[in-house]
Amino acid sequence: MRLKGFQKLTSVDEALQMFFNTLRIKKLKAVVVPLHSALNRVLAEDIIARENLPRFDRSAVDGYAVRAEDTFEASQFKPKTLRITEDDEEIGSKQAKQVWTGNPIPKGANAVVMLENTKPINCEVEVWVSVTPGENISKKSEDVRKREVAAKAGTRLKPQHLGLIAALGIAEVKVVERPKIAILATGNELVEIGGKPGEDQIFEVNRLILSALCRELDAEPVDLGIVKDDEDEILGKLKIGFEMADVVITSGGTSVGISDIVPEVVNTIGKPGVIVHGVAMRPAMPSALAIVDGKPMIILSGNPVAAMIGFEVFARPLICRMLGLEKEERRLTVKAKITRRVSTVLGRKTFVRVRVLQRNGEFFAEPISARGSGIISTMTKANGYVVVPENREGLEKGEAVSVYLFDNVEVVDGDV
Amino acid sequence: MRLKGFQKLTSVDEALQMFFNTLRIKKLKAVVVPLHSALNRVLAEDIIARENLPRFDRSAVDGYAVRAEDTFEASQFKPKTLRITEDDEEIGSKQAKQVWTGNPIPKGANAVVMLENTKPINCEVEVWVSVTPGENISKKSEDVRKREVAAKAGTRLKPQHLGLIAALGIAEVKVVERPKIAILATGNELVEIGGKPGEDQIFEVNRLILSALCRELDAEPVDLGIVKDDEDEILGKLKIGFEMADVVITSGGTSVGISDIVPEVVNTIGKPGVIVHGVAMRPAMPSALAIVDGKPMIILSGNPVAAMIGFEVFARPLICRMLGLEKEERRLTVKAKITRRVSTVLGRKTFVRVRVLQRNGEFFAEPISARGSGIISTMTKANGYVVVPENREGLEKGEAVSVYLFDNVEVVDGDV
Repeated sequence: MRLKGFQKLTSVDEALQMFFNTLRIKKLKAVVVPLHSALNRVLAEDIIARENLPRFDRSAVDGYAVRAEDTFEASQFKPKTLRITEDDEEIGSKQAKQVWTGNPIPKGANAVVMLENTKPINCEVEVWVSVTPGENISKKSEDVRKREVAAKAGTRLKPQHLGLIAALGIAEVKVVERPKIAILATGNELVEIGGKPGEDQIFEVNRLILSALCRELDAEPVDLGIVKDDEDEILGKLKIGFEMADVVITSGGTSVGISDIVPEVVNTIGKPGVIVHGVAMRPAMPSALAIVDGKPMIILSGNPVAAMIGFEVFARPLICRMLGLEKEERRLTVKAKITRRVSTVLGRKTFVRVRVLQRNGEFFAEPISARGSGIISTMTKANGYVVVPENREGLEKGEAVSVYLFDNVEVVDGDV
Repeated sequence: MRLKGFQKLTSVDEALQMFFNTLRIKKLKAVVVPLHSALNRVLAEDIIARENLPRFDRSAVDGYAVRAEDTFEASQFKPKTLRITEDDEEIGSKQAKQVWTGNPIPKGANAVVMLENTKPINCEVEVWVSVTPGENISKKSEDVRKREVAAKAGTRLKPQHLGLIAALGIAEVKVVERPKIAILATGNELVEIGGKPGEDQIFEVNRLILSALCRELDAEPVDLGIVKDDEDEILGKLKIGFEMADVVITSGGTSVGISDIVPEVVNTIGKPGVIVHGVAMRPAMPSALAIVDGKPMIILSGNPVAAMIGFEVFARPLICRMLGLEKEERRLTVKAKITRRVSTVLGRKTFVRVRVLQRNGEFFAEPISARGSGIISTMTKANGYVVVPENREGLEKGEAVSVYLFDNVEVVDGDV
């Protein structure tokens, strides 16, 4: 496994394939939560309507429930006059009953005339338009039919899903438990944020970034802290991680040299250990993927940008699959024109950070230039990235590319 | 204000203009939070770098720090041999010192040779490539220069922003306090989710939906519960709402007829009261906008779909402006082809729910048909909406439209 200088790199696609072919993703447990705390959780069960929605025919407008036949040929110049009934009796011929939006349609009525097309005069109402049977009525079960699946297992619950489930009278739902992701940073040079760094030390930022990326997917980060580049310390922390969490992610200690420590320690913990170490990509080349007694582990570079891209490429699909959310593995892409030439290295899948903006409905992607994968500000200047495949040496100015969006897009000019 | 049948409707644009011209948006307070709980909050201060990032020139790779001049003309066939120095001395002529990614560049060195282009032999190292001065070095301040603004006030903090701020050694930030949004549902027909509805009653779902929509923007919903269509009850709740919250949103009791109660009660609480009642839009026509002694209020229809669209059109820009996030007022739009004809009513801005999918990089929008604004399942089937302007009577099949996205887009076929 110790590949001096990574003379052998695995392609991104092959790495993912090897990882997911070896890994048997365990189904996460389901937990019952009240609807009001289920936003963004993933449904673990099909929601089946126990009743029709609506449960009864109801008025879609404010107006008068009538027999449609009684309004035929009515007009503003030749209104029909109907007697207003107040009681709960069936509506008879030439009768009307006032209803508000959402009210049940009274027996005998088969249509509703909108209030603005009527004029009440004492106990009667003038009707100025003709309505057809069924007009302005929301039919029973029009929204969801009894026993129909209203929301499928594997749905990420947005406000509208919560509303639909609530409308069925369901107050609690089974959602997928949040996968626990243990996160460890390794490196002698690392100091806790808020601490005092020595001459050649830097603040450790990857745990914060990776935790936030987990939370965005609704996974639960478990902080394992910082350890020195020391086999025993690393071993101790990793064991805790594998015990407490469903996935372990480390950052640092994965490039060539002394820093092979993490992959080597991993191999002592369980089988099959490291599956891929060194990926033909830029940044994040020194990433490694491991499986330890059935639990997945992702070993990321200590460079923040490489760690973020590594998370995007390896951890995001893993977490999505654990949640049963294959659809979300890929971020939304938009087609954009690249605003200037970009050169990349043949044989490396390159993740070019870009700032996308929308002008008159068209997207333009401005590449953010940067030297190293340590330059975090390239990620805050960018709101997306373009993937340049291994067989290309770059992108031409004006080329149409797919941009994966990870932040808001600014609209420079309005459009309709 | 009591507009029988809303004979006078205000256009959406005019309604927004009247509302925001009358309202003086008060700046929300700033609160200090630790970085690890600042995800998705909005920065209330410019983050200014107190030091250069990096603080020192550092190696961007694993390798040997050298004087670039000593490597000139080196090749795999004609390597240059340098003596490895271990101590902290300045690197002299024909000397090299091993460095790992992130290590400070030793004095005297001006470039780094990547490990894979070297071969150590005892106390010496063979260098197989020529490097130029500065090569493989991350220069001091390359990421952020001292006193530079690293993140601007008004930034929604994503993982990458947290990372950059942390890298500067800043552990706490001032963020904008979450605006408090009081939410009240009115209607005799409403039953709490989980309760037992009578024959003609329905479950109240709008508080749940509106609260979730608030949370998605990082605003804080305050639940005022359900009240009957009773002036005194409504008055009592609204007073509490205006006392506790920055914004009050109600749903129900706003269409014509008995249900004018909410706007009428509002006018008794404070000035100027209701500014707009009845908007030329579909759905959400009976929406009303009010300002009560400087505090904004949005009165939404009781129909869930109308309430959601009303929130989108009126509450979303309000909350974004309160947070200082004008950029997020508008959701991301993509250009899509509409898959079939849609007809709309002239004179009404119509919000057509659509299901967008991406096929080979192109977006297609399938209109979701529905009769009334009570059909919540149209919102769960849709992932976006198209706005048909007042002067159009619909959309032609195949027409290119802008879709505002509110949920994930499914990719039917891959693309690059």
